[in-house]
Amino acid sequence: MNKLNLWLSALLLFCSWTYSSAGQVISIADFGLKPDSRVNAVPYVQKALEACRKQPGSTLLFPKGRYDFWAQHSTERDYYETNTTDNNPKTLAILLDSLKDFTLDGNGSSFVMHGRMQPLTLDHCSDIRLKGFNIDWDIPLTAQAKVLKSTPDYFEIQIDTHESPYIIEDNRLVFIGEGWKSEMWGIMEFTPDTHLVAPYTGDRLGWRRYHAEEVSPGIVRLSDPKVAKVYPKVGNWLVLRTNERDHAGIFLFHSNNVSMEEIDLYHCCGLGVLSQYTRDITMIKVRVVPNAAKNRYLSGHDDGFHFMGCSGTIRIDQCAWGGLMDDPINIHGTCVRIVEILSPTRIKCRFMHEQSVGMEWGRPGEKVGFIENQSMRTVGTGIMTSFNPLSKTDFIVELQAPLPVGIAAGAALENLTCTPDVEIRNSFFGSCRARGLLVSTPGKVVIENNTFESSGSAILIAGDANQWYESGAVKDVLIRNNIFRYPCMSSMYQFCEAVISIYPEIPKPDPKYPFHRNIRIENNTFNLFDYPILYAKSVDGLSFTDNKLVRNTTYQPFHYRKDGITLDACKNVLISGNKAEGDVLGKTIRLENMKPGEVKLRKDSFFKLKK
Amino acid sequence: MNKLNLWLSALLLFCSWTYSSAGQVISIADFGLKPDSRVNAVPYVQKALEACRKQPGSTLLFPKGRYDFWAQHSTERDYYETNTTDNNPKTLAILLDSLKDFTLDGNGSSFVMHGRMQPLTLDHCSDIRLKGFNIDWDIPLTAQAKVLKSTPDYFEIQIDTHESPYIIEDNRLVFIGEGWKSEMWGIMEFTPDTHLVAPYTGDRLGWRRYHAEEVSPGIVRLSDPKVAKVYPKVGNWLVLRTNERDHAGIFLFHSNNVSMEEIDLYHCCGLGVLSQYTRDITMIKVRVVPNAAKNRYLSGHDDGFHFMGCSGTIRIDQCAWGGLMDDPINIHGTCVRIVEILSPTRIKCRFMHEQSVGMEWGRPGEKVGFIENQSMRTVGTGIMTSFNPLSKTDFIVELQAPLPVGIAAGAALENLTCTPDVEIRNSFFGSCRARGLLVSTPGKVVIENNTFESSGSAILIAGDANQWYESGAVKDVLIRNNIFRYPCMSSMYQFCEAVISIYPEIPKPDPKYPFHRNIRIENNTFNLFDYPILYAKSVDGLSFTDNKLVRNTTYQPFHYRKDGITLDACKNVLISGNKAEGDVLGKTIRLENMKPGEVKLRKDSFFKLKK
Repeated sequence: MNKLNLWLSALLLFCSWTYSSAGQVISIADFGLKPDSRVNAVPYVQKALEACRKQPGSTLLFPKGRYDFWAQHSTERDYYETNTTDNNPKTLAILLDSLKDFTLDGNGSSFVMHGRMQPLTLDHCSDIRLKGFNIDWDIPLTAQAKVLKSTPDYFEIQIDTHESPYIIEDNRLVFIGEGWKSEMWGIMEFTPDTHLVAPYTGDRLGWRRYHAEEVSPGIVRLSDPKVAKVYPKVGNWLVLRTNERDHAGIFLFHSNNVSMEEIDLYHCCGLGVLSQYTRDITMIKVRVVPNAAKNRYLSGHDDGFHFMGCSGTIRIDQCAWGGLMDDPINIHGTCVRIVEILSPTRIKCRFMHEQSVGMEWGRPGEKVGFIENQSMRTVGTGIMTSFNPLSKTDFIVELQAPLPVGIAAGAALENLTCTPDVEIRNSFFGSCRARGLLVSTPGKVVIENNTFESSGSAILIAGDANQWYESGAVKDVLIRNNIFRYPCMSSMYQFCEAVISIYPEIPKPDPKYPFHRNIRIENNTFNLFDYPILYAKSVDGLSFTDNKLVRNTTYQPFHYRKDGITLDACKNVLISGNKAEGDVLGKTIRLENMKPGEVKLRKDSFFKLKK
Repeated sequence: MNKLNLWLSALLLFCSWTYSSAGQVISIADFGLKPDSRVNAVPYVQKALEACRKQPGSTLLFPKGRYDFWAQHSTERDYYETNTTDNNPKTLAILLDSLKDFTLDGNGSSFVMHGRMQPLTLDHCSDIRLKGFNIDWDIPLTAQAKVLKSTPDYFEIQIDTHESPYIIEDNRLVFIGEGWKSEMWGIMEFTPDTHLVAPYTGDRLGWRRYHAEEVSPGIVRLSDPKVAKVYPKVGNWLVLRTNERDHAGIFLFHSNNVSMEEIDLYHCCGLGVLSQYTRDITMIKVRVVPNAAKNRYLSGHDDGFHFMGCSGTIRIDQCAWGGLMDDPINIHGTCVRIVEILSPTRIKCRFMHEQSVGMEWGRPGEKVGFIENQSMRTVGTGIMTSFNPLSKTDFIVELQAPLPVGIAAGAALENLTCTPDVEIRNSFFGSCRARGLLVSTPGKVVIENNTFESSGSAILIAGDANQWYESGAVKDVLIRNNIFRYPCMSSMYQFCEAVISIYPEIPKPDPKYPFHRNIRIENNTFNLFDYPILYAKSVDGLSFTDNKLVRNTTYQPFHYRKDGITLDACKNVLISGNKAEGDVLGKTIRLENMKPGEVKLRKDSFFKLKK
């Protein structure tokens, strides 16, 4: 190293030191809030955040301990949160409102919420770092219970009445929380110790018409004439579903460059981390899991990480999920229906799902795709020049150029600008209700070095413009070096056709134009107790190569599909280099609505094309 | 009855019918609040009250059920509440603000509070009727426990951890409620079933330096080296005192003509019903008692009914108190100190007790008394022409005429306009910490047909202008046809010198000018296990006549006074016609600082004047 280099290095070191020391650390204790004091932290945090606003680059530090949050003094604000019940206003425990260059450092603290609320909200923020805290509720919005007794006529459960106070009202089990009351309306069954969804259970039971009676305080007898004889097993733990999903845990709204690190979200009232129209998100060691210290089987209320309309890059590394009542990750956009063509460049559109309304769907200059709703084919793209809401459901979009030929009222519109690249690495998809990872983005997607124990499909690539309106088609997905453990696909849920399920919903598929394209599944290890490994519909360019398939006998096979790979209306498929250990069941490749010539089966000692 | 009379009667009937039907009944249900819904009632009640404001004479009706109140959306307002910790703002669950001619009818409903709050506040209201509800907390601001074990070295208690969640922190028993955390700092001991304060306990134990450890969940071992060997008895119940008194239960503030009927106040954060500068109050069947349905020994946090600076007539009928941590009734004014004489008609005054500051102490035209603070003699009166606060503690009073001779800085000022007449009838003074009834008003006072089971003195007539600054001297008190049951005076508290204790605090009494006057105690029944029946200091005109004295042997005598009647610096005393049943102990009359000639003992077969 010459002298100049040495000097430059020293300067660089100095600059990086001054840069990092420029950020002032502001302690919440300076505002009079002590850890473990059990007082309502809300007004103290509000004052501290206003001080931080005046110090760009500052860190708000919480001395390690417990901090409690009640709705009193909290900001209430209307947010149309996707895939969430529209019951505005939302109650916001901590609100970062238009903050820039700010760090919230919990230093290992616990933020304990009370009642229905959104713990942390970022609204039009940029360059935000969140780290070092966990979020929980003493009285969660979902309950759990241990199965004590199970007979053909009824079963009995034990509820921790401190954690989940309840009453029996009109023979219903009704939980009473802090400002809410909610009937139990669903049950998910978990095996003790492993915390896995009990095999073959899933959404099997409706649990809407049960009869409840109290045997003694904390012991409740349940029966349901419609599900008799399939009652949960003694010793298993149940998550008793109550309440609607009405607040996210952490809500990133129209923000930019947000990093989250070492955050445990033990519970929330809806989706765990919901990112909506936010650009560039990094999540490292963020876990939405049950609080082990409390022997919790339940964690967040619904999805773990939910991304809608995001852009830039989503980086997820060393994260984990478990005990959720919906998918750990769901990444998608929102299609809308064109309800009226007002002029060649002016269209009236409508949000079609009641849990996706009121959103700022687009901004001038953004690119849109026009989707013919029967074939789901994108027949053209355009540039939005204006977005004007008419109501919670309807809005007007103006376009730079006339609509493409073939697009009429009834077609769908997709926002192609708000579509992220995605990297998901080194993460653990524990056992939850539903699937593991749902991804629907035309951006570059890398899913590698993850472990899946999802109870349904590990990965679902869906896409529809007719029911959920969760756009869109994928164009570049790499699924590499992941381990799919035996619990994958041990329960049935919607769209779960195999461990990896590519299942767009296309009313009238056009074989010439598959919906998805360019999906590579390589060098993964599949531990399989059942037949279906891969289901793919309407994909152009699909490879399933060099995967290791290992027979597992923990569970008995139960799925109605008896083929390892099912391909439907796909083109340019390569299956190659896969190897099996043990008597892996799903040996056959089944083709539907396509020619055998579209499949290249090479150097593969295991799979056989079904005739 | 002639035709004209008949016609007039019919007209009268019609008018009264139209008048009563004029009041519109507005149901809280019309605002979307259902009973037993467990949602926060606060915003619904606010809307309903605004509707009622537009309909003078209206009634707000609550369909019978449970209604929950949380601090969210509640009004916060600064109130300087007497005898209450000054920790503004107060959190107000239901606020009647400048309402006139209004009825709140709970129809038997339960109003359940959460956290530190003031359930019901009347601020500058008039012609208000409150009826038919009870107020309670799921998690009270005071705890209770059963004594399971008692040894010379420690004792063990059982706590209902749903009702009173706690933690042990630094060997202290710390209760954690909804937005608060408070160490246990005092213990009161009650006997089971009877709910009486255990005899000879009272304020005996300080309980400030104890050591606590958890034996198992809900079982706590307590020891205190300072009080060893006088631990509570196995089977007894303890009220564990926590928190400060910081909100009243029902607060009547500068209001006029308020009637309350059929209200059970099962708990509160401070004084039960606090009436401050309010005129004409009627309370019928208002009870501040433990909630029997919850096996509660604890009730309100401190006093039951507390009246300060009230005027007109206070009517109390068929009311009850029990399980309080302070006196069931306390009626007084507030003396202030003259700290500086600015001119012959302009004086600077100061609130002298930290729990009586910030009040609007007077209004132009009100009458004041000038009290020489050593003899406590009122040396003259005057009329206030203005009242101007300088700070929370200090204010300027201007007078119509110059100050009387002999009044200098250090003297006290009393508001003589804000002094009520009082009628207390047919009520039950159950067992509480401290005394039964404290009354200090120059108005006409009638106390009749009541039953007392107070653990200290049943009736205390105090008065001081040097320590508590609770004015004032009485001029006309009739105590008639009451029953004092055996628990009276079974524990010691401040000023408890006999079942009826007249104990003004006068630094240098002037025998010519006794402080109190005209107190008649007649036709009462005293059930007595101990000696002291009546203690009277500085009274001019005192009669104790035709009372029935009955020996009771439930408890052993313990009081240091061994005379039935002690008179100190009194004048014009008549003792006559009293009769005893059984071996009543307090046979003697002891005189201090007075001549025997001031006592007339007539037709009395029982009392003997002590030589």
